[in-house]
Amino acid sequence: MQPKTIIALDAMGGDHAPLIVLAGAEMASLRHPEVGFLLFGDEARLIPLLADYPRLQKSAIIRHASDVITGDMKPSVALRQGRNSSMRLAIQAVETGEAACVVSAGNTGAFMALAKFVLKTLPGIDRPAISGLIPTTKGEMVLLDIGANVECDAENLVQFSLMGAVFAKTVLGIENPSLALLNIGSEEMKGHDELRAAAALMQERPMPGHYVGFVEANDILTGKADVVVTDGFTGNSVLKAIEGTSKLMGHFLKQTFASSLFAKIGYLFAKGAFARLRHQIDPRKYNGAMLLGLQGVAVKSHGGTDADGFSNAISVAMNLIKYNFNDRIRVELARHYGVSDGQVIDQPAAASAAASGDAA
Amino acid sequence: MQPKTIIALDAMGGDHAPLIVLAGAEMASLRHPEVGFLLFGDEARLIPLLADYPRLQKSAIIRHASDVITGDMKPSVALRQGRNSSMRLAIQAVETGEAACVVSAGNTGAFMALAKFVLKTLPGIDRPAISGLIPTTKGEMVLLDIGANVECDAENLVQFSLMGAVFAKTVLGIENPSLALLNIGSEEMKGHDELRAAAALMQERPMPGHYVGFVEANDILTGKADVVVTDGFTGNSVLKAIEGTSKLMGHFLKQTFASSLFAKIGYLFAKGAFARLRHQIDPRKYNGAMLLGLQGVAVKSHGGTDADGFSNAISVAMNLIKYNFNDRIRVELARHYGVSDGQVIDQPAAASAAASGDAA
Repeated sequence: MQPKTIIALDAMGGDHAPLIVLAGAEMASLRHPEVGFLLFGDEARLIPLLADYPRLQKSAIIRHASDVITGDMKPSVALRQGRNSSMRLAIQAVETGEAACVVSAGNTGAFMALAKFVLKTLPGIDRPAISGLIPTTKGEMVLLDIGANVECDAENLVQFSLMGAVFAKTVLGIENPSLALLNIGSEEMKGHDELRAAAALMQERPMPGHYVGFVEANDILTGKADVVVTDGFTGNSVLKAIEGTSKLMGHFLKQTFASSLFAKIGYLFAKGAFARLRHQIDPRKYNGAMLLGLQGVAVKSHGGTDADGFSNAISVAMNLIKYNFNDRIRVELARHYGVSDGQVIDQPAAASAAASGDAA
Repeated sequence: MQPKTIIALDAMGGDHAPLIVLAGAEMASLRHPEVGFLLFGDEARLIPLLADYPRLQKSAIIRHASDVITGDMKPSVALRQGRNSSMRLAIQAVETGEAACVVSAGNTGAFMALAKFVLKTLPGIDRPAISGLIPTTKGEMVLLDIGANVECDAENLVQFSLMGAVFAKTVLGIENPSLALLNIGSEEMKGHDELRAAAALMQERPMPGHYVGFVEANDILTGKADVVVTDGFTGNSVLKAIEGTSKLMGHFLKQTFASSLFAKIGYLFAKGAFARLRHQIDPRKYNGAMLLGLQGVAVKSHGGTDADGFSNAISVAMNLIKYNFNDRIRVELARHYGVSDGQVIDQPAAASAAASGDAA
């Protein structure tokens, strides 16, 4: 019998939990029959619901969690009071080696804080980052940090670039990814010391990819670089500006097609093509932000997503496991910091051994 | 005879200068017959070109400038070496009171540095900011700072809010504008001390408008607030992400209409409606970023714009003059800092008196 990959799910996290978590996991079990689930949450609510998902019923085990991390809970409060929360217990399953990864659609700040506290960062990584995939005219690119670190120093930015590059190489299959730092064009403005220092480091030290320089936020969408790195405040704002603009354009598009009889007829003809476009840029396809730099695989689903989106977040986690993502980061870190292979990679924790175990 | 409003133009600034500057000024003279122009630039190039613009020929005077500030020149170099540049001489015309405002499509960093150096900031404003107009589902909103200050403290952010609010009140005609600070949702992340301090100040002190709290970058596009304030690094990145996403969506739209015969037929029917949409969200309509907080009116046109866009930047400058923008900022600053009217407004410079003189 094929050894199962076990995924820990925070069944209570997100706007429409636990329903979309169960429905998403059901869809994921169809896509990944080798996967088993640990569902962390309120037993009394989960047991009757599970009856509606025949596949999941066979592949999932419910683990009772008496508490829930709410959407507005501060990370510090989640750390103090969330010991019995579904989110924390799901993360702990990765730490103990029971699960290969954890997926949650709950409170992002709390998830990051708990994952960092429980799993710890990879040796050689000072701070974890959150990364996301963004569609471009050429395909897709990796943007990070999209919200974990409001302020970053040069070394942080370089480490983010390294992790983003490994992601582009492994999961996106880009052999020699182009790496860039987000800047605002003008070279001599204040506050860019960290950026310039990071640029210098990326040119000096071995990177898994090639550094192409500074890019501006509009270049993200043209795919000028496969990986664009920035601090979490700017990255989060840029990501939300992109989401907001897509929505605004969708709104204008709807208005336009409804604005005249001719336009309405035009829509009837073009309907099929627009259905394909909608599918192409479906935000659910890009659901699943990776928490990179932890000793274990943790993926954050959008809080407002549906079952489809949640199942995609599970696929993102599966990809990170399949490609031994964390092991490859260890190798690249060793090369980057010029220590012989294995030296930086001290004591791989049970967590990350488990996370990459099934594909090793 | 009606007293003319004199506008100083940097005829050599921008990707397509001096042609689009002359063509744009010609269009503007049609729209604003009361305007006269001072064209700063290379006399030998400008004189023969001017022959093609009959209106402008009557309303413009050429002022020779032997130098040009190039697009890649650092602000510090522009300050040291740009004494005889078209940009600096145009700004000086505002300082001496010869012109009511200056418009340039040249190097943004250099324009800001020169304008700040020559015109000085308004008393009570520590740093000038650049603001831009953005289309929303509800109309349009003001975003600032979009690039002048990479790092801002709480007091800077509050002053930006005040200036943005005066702009929304006067130029956009919104009686009681809603004011917001850009944040990334999570309340307890590092690096937000300045934002929280700014929020507190905006609730304590009199503001020309009402403070509605933190918004995220996607809220910019839904028009959740009339004025959204952030630092220049984030603001510039958000603005460019919005521009980039609009372009990407346009690209996808084109692809979609070309993707099948039905879609092509659909486009023929919907063509008129899409022409109206293109007009509605035409970036040229939103051309003209305001340099707020200076003792004089200075407007920056996009470097790559065409004559249409440049003429809109001139209109933006005309609006700032017409509504006595700088005088109103003085009044609101006095109210904000609790000094009796006129006290903060010490020694109004010749420049700003001239800038608002024609409407006073």
